[in-house]
Amino acid sequence: MHTADPFLFQLFFIFVWAKLFGEVFERLRLPAVLGEILAGVLVGPFGFRLVVPDEAIYAIAEIGAIFLLFTVGLETNPKELISVGVTSLWVALAGIALPFLLGFGYMMARHDSVHEAVFVAAAMVATSVGITARVLGDMHVLQTLPARIILGAAVCDDILGMIVRGVFMGLVSTTGTAWAQVILTSIEAIGFAVVMMFCAPRVVRRMEPGLERMSTQDAPLIIAIAICLGLSYAAVKIGMAAIIGAFFAGLAFAEYSPRWNLRRRAFAINEFLAPFFFFSMGARLNLAVFDRRLIISAIVISALALLSKLVGCGLPVLRSGWKTALKVGAGMTPRGEVGLIVALVGLQMNIISQSAYALVIFMTGATTLVAPPIMRVLFREDVPHEEPFVERRRTLRSPSTDC
Amino acid sequence: MHTADPFLFQLFFIFVWAKLFGEVFERLRLPAVLGEILAGVLVGPFGFRLVVPDEAIYAIAEIGAIFLLFTVGLETNPKELISVGVTSLWVALAGIALPFLLGFGYMMARHDSVHEAVFVAAAMVATSVGITARVLGDMHVLQTLPARIILGAAVCDDILGMIVRGVFMGLVSTTGTAWAQVILTSIEAIGFAVVMMFCAPRVVRRMEPGLERMSTQDAPLIIAIAICLGLSYAAVKIGMAAIIGAFFAGLAFAEYSPRWNLRRRAFAINEFLAPFFFFSMGARLNLAVFDRRLIISAIVISALALLSKLVGCGLPVLRSGWKTALKVGAGMTPRGEVGLIVALVGLQMNIISQSAYALVIFMTGATTLVAPPIMRVLFREDVPHEEPFVERRRTLRSPSTDC
Repeated sequence: MHTADPFLFQLFFIFVWAKLFGEVFERLRLPAVLGEILAGVLVGPFGFRLVVPDEAIYAIAEIGAIFLLFTVGLETNPKELISVGVTSLWVALAGIALPFLLGFGYMMARHDSVHEAVFVAAAMVATSVGITARVLGDMHVLQTLPARIILGAAVCDDILGMIVRGVFMGLVSTTGTAWAQVILTSIEAIGFAVVMMFCAPRVVRRMEPGLERMSTQDAPLIIAIAICLGLSYAAVKIGMAAIIGAFFAGLAFAEYSPRWNLRRRAFAINEFLAPFFFFSMGARLNLAVFDRRLIISAIVISALALLSKLVGCGLPVLRSGWKTALKVGAGMTPRGEVGLIVALVGLQMNIISQSAYALVIFMTGATTLVAPPIMRVLFREDVPHEEPFVERRRTLRSPSTDC
Repeated sequence: MHTADPFLFQLFFIFVWAKLFGEVFERLRLPAVLGEILAGVLVGPFGFRLVVPDEAIYAIAEIGAIFLLFTVGLETNPKELISVGVTSLWVALAGIALPFLLGFGYMMARHDSVHEAVFVAAAMVATSVGITARVLGDMHVLQTLPARIILGAAVCDDILGMIVRGVFMGLVSTTGTAWAQVILTSIEAIGFAVVMMFCAPRVVRRMEPGLERMSTQDAPLIIAIAICLGLSYAAVKIGMAAIIGAFFAGLAFAEYSPRWNLRRRAFAINEFLAPFFFFSMGARLNLAVFDRRLIISAIVISALALLSKLVGCGLPVLRSGWKTALKVGAGMTPRGEVGLIVALVGLQMNIISQSAYALVIFMTGATTLVAPPIMRVLFREDVPHEEPFVERRRTLRSPSTDC
């Protein structure tokens, strides 16, 4: 039987400690996510060893990752994508291809294993639009052309990136690397994505009257959670990661999310679970692996991650002027939680080493830190003048901004 | 490292299976909670052994119990209590004393240990107003005098019952039973309750401007969760159960719950976690312990639980007529989740045996099953006539009824 005492203490301590660092980072205008990871690094098993999370905490962190990707999916409305047009598609495609190739090439040049190279490269593909959207929202520039391109491209990036990750994780987890396997896994991943994007929303639409007739209260939320857990398990079963199933489950409900108030409630669940995920990410990071060689590699990888998004995402919009290109590139740079989760999956599958894991965390941290100030400088010219500064400040801090 | 596969499967299976039974029970107009417990009994380790929940599932169930009691606390607004007056106080007091004495006496007569007798009696004290409130709400009779007395008394019952449970759990968990110990634990429990009821809401009121200025989004929810986890841990530390801390944490936020939209979001977290709790309750129930003697005891205990609330809660309102007395008594009868959690704590502390645990589950199930039909018959005369049946039906099934 579970002994309540240390588990309850860990639950309380980790939650408060992580949120505290998140709040301090927010006040310093740094991404809260990085604060929560640092919280784990400091007191975790590789830090001061104040908290050595037990198995149950890691299990909760795992559910946290699933709900995190589920809400990313919920926010990815494929309909928005169509309205922004092909520019966003090109931005996303180039923003996937270039980081992947550069990352993979550099890792191979470092004589890492193919598996590690694939995982680090797959983490470099990620774009976490959450941080970008928040910076742009706080500046009231979400209606500008570059902002709309970024948001559309982020949707493409999420979906295409998730397929790419699905394929590679599937490949890496199987023993064979024959072409037949590559083709099979690709078909699985693409099939999964297509079914979830085009068939699932229709199924949800069909379910709607039935759901609203169900006796159980909160039926839509319950069905959404059930499908999220089911697809996470299904994704693992066909050789992909659970988070990919969770993302596509969110995508299937994206259309009905506002009507059923799913987003707000999924956020409440997240608010509780996510700190355990980010803290665990930090607790798993061994700072001792950072020798001179790894630090150089980490800086190179981070620079490549920044440049590849700036160039890859900037080039397709260069005809709108270099400033627009830079804005779009900077907006697509933060890797955020998606990059982290990819690294974690690699670590859990025993495919990547502690040092490759450290590389990804460093790269994610660096890109997520660097992008917001660059964006603030670039977008300053677009800030509407009638908006007084005090008002903006208030919006930034109001708890209702995100819900 | 956690192997994702069986854990994810359990997560998915338990959630869907429990919710399925909940839905079927709702359609049969039976309490969903009992369906979720039955789901656990059937496929759990003592049933068909399809799912043997691992440690992490029990940990999630434990958090589920904490959030369950936190939301019970959130719904217990002490201000409502004052408006209903002393009648409710007497109803609650008699509804605590009589079940406790009858339960304790019967268990001692059965030659059970004092600890077991205390735990079974403490579970008999519980009143789960959730089920009653739903039945009365569906019938549109919440504004009648007996309904208002029930809701007021349930608030008193929650608070006083929680103090009683705190004292007894504290006593049982310590080795000494000297009077000094009794007095010390009582002072601790009552002190805890008084601080949480009178000081904590003031602290929350003081925190309010600070909370709304915090950079972290959703600050009120985060602070509420942090305090809930902190008090749960504190309660364990001073020798009470975690759930008692969680309940009083909810109570401290009850006043601000509507304003900060806490209830709805705590409910969303509950919606995910609670099925694991109820399923685990069922999975821990060994039906094989029900021999002839235990079945007779279970029926006697259930009858005592019903009668003691009917008489105990009915007597103080007898001057308003025997029908009002019966209505109040029946409304206070369902034990629901509060009784269950007490039994679980006893099992976890290795204080009560499998058979005493089975007795409590049987008693909770029986009182929760029997009360709603009795209430429907008794309150039929109060149903407003202008309300068409179809309309009531719709309200019953609307997902928004409870939020």
